[in-house]
Amino acid sequence: MPAIRAQPLAGLPEIRSGEDLAQLIVQAIADPAELEGAVVCVAHKVISKAEGAVVELAGVRATERALQIGREQDRDPRVVQVVLDESLEVLRSQRGVLITRTRHGFVCANAGVDASNAAAPDQLILLPRDPDRSARALRARLTELSGRRPAVLISDSFGRAWRHGQADVAIGLAGLHPLDDWRGREDSTGMRLQATWLAVADAAAGAADLARAKDSREPVVIVAGLERHLSEEDGPGAAALLRPLSEDLFR
Amino acid sequence: MPAIRAQPLAGLPEIRSGEDLAQLIVQAIADPAELEGAVVCVAHKVISKAEGAVVELAGVRATERALQIGREQDRDPRVVQVVLDESLEVLRSQRGVLITRTRHGFVCANAGVDASNAAAPDQLILLPRDPDRSARALRARLTELSGRRPAVLISDSFGRAWRHGQADVAIGLAGLHPLDDWRGREDSTGMRLQATWLAVADAAAGAADLARAKDSREPVVIVAGLERHLSEEDGPGAAALLRPLSEDLFR
Repeated sequence: MPAIRAQPLAGLPEIRSGEDLAQLIVQAIADPAELEGAVVCVAHKVISKAEGAVVELAGVRATERALQIGREQDRDPRVVQVVLDESLEVLRSQRGVLITRTRHGFVCANAGVDASNAAAPDQLILLPRDPDRSARALRARLTELSGRRPAVLISDSFGRAWRHGQADVAIGLAGLHPLDDWRGREDSTGMRLQATWLAVADAAAGAADLARAKDSREPVVIVAGLERHLSEEDGPGAAALLRPLSEDLFR
Repeated sequence: MPAIRAQPLAGLPEIRSGEDLAQLIVQAIADPAELEGAVVCVAHKVISKAEGAVVELAGVRATERALQIGREQDRDPRVVQVVLDESLEVLRSQRGVLITRTRHGFVCANAGVDASNAAAPDQLILLPRDPDRSARALRARLTELSGRRPAVLISDSFGRAWRHGQADVAIGLAGLHPLDDWRGREDSTGMRLQATWLAVADAAAGAADLARAKDSREPVVIVAGLERHLSEEDGPGAAALLRPLSEDLFR
């Protein structure tokens, strides 16, 4: 097997609303050939900023429910309100933790709403409205500008139910198979693999995150070596990684 | 930041009980310098096989509880019995899925008990008895044989509550910090990072898994570029990744 390589892209400027992220990426890349067969992994915050998926706290009015959770959790009720606005369902509100299902269907803390790496202290960054669409658009624009057709992966860091710390997962995807399905195929000894179904895109998101420091301005990481998981078409996106409600054992 | 690189180790023979895995690894490596500053990531099955953490189904007698779950899930009750024997607690037994907390404290399907990649069809491979100890022992032996002191990571593929597919996580660890704690530190704009606490070892396990195909005999992957997360001492191990019961919101 070829090696997997994750390399942060240096030299990107701060991303602002309305910015052409693809152009900034192509300008920052030394050799466009690096995009060939690569996965361009982008921390969602720069997508959210470029798309203006940002909320000014000053304009938020907390409902009774947000006020109550805010009191229980000793948190700014306006932040809680933004989390609720981004959520379909609250799964847990305990011990200062608010686990919800987002409008997209992601289960994570605070609906992915985040104040760190915001441009201003009274600003919250939301998840992109439709991260798969964002990934497809970025891929199309990268292809247009560079003449190469890399895959695009948009990531966020999610906590896990039974393990400490966060792991990056794919929330938007274009041109990379989200899953590698070995169920029913055979292993090296000829045994049928019963449950082997690899979340390739999430592992790629994790590898990209390993390559950057959290305080660095390196929101973009180029991952090479995943050629066998790439596709010419954009594919089903990160939405295909979501377990449907009917199979959820942990609501 | 330097690039992260994950390279499978080719040329390992099939691992049998009692085998000196460290010696096989050192023999398979072209240049021992590759071990310097590297993380040797090992799929747990070869550790389990080398340590004899294997159960012959023929010798298993199912209890009433295992018989009942076997009937409900249309599964061999002896397999269910082995899963129960490896578990402290059953979290869910629904829709053919048995989610338990293992003796080690891991929450996963079937207590990590697996028939694929077993040496024989009536054999089950268990998780290693004490994967952190296994990692420390392998690290010590690799150091002895190679004169280098790589970190060692033992991984398994776990399903996730709300997402399809499996992701590799660290179940045993020596010489690699399991977590990178940025809580209370500042991001690039000077904002305090409130929840940033990266599960470095799990991301490394995922990167290693990306580098190998499931049907290949490549249980060992060398991950380079994680020097800033390495430690001379073996450290707290993968046990430090486990969220304590008192913080578990999803039992």
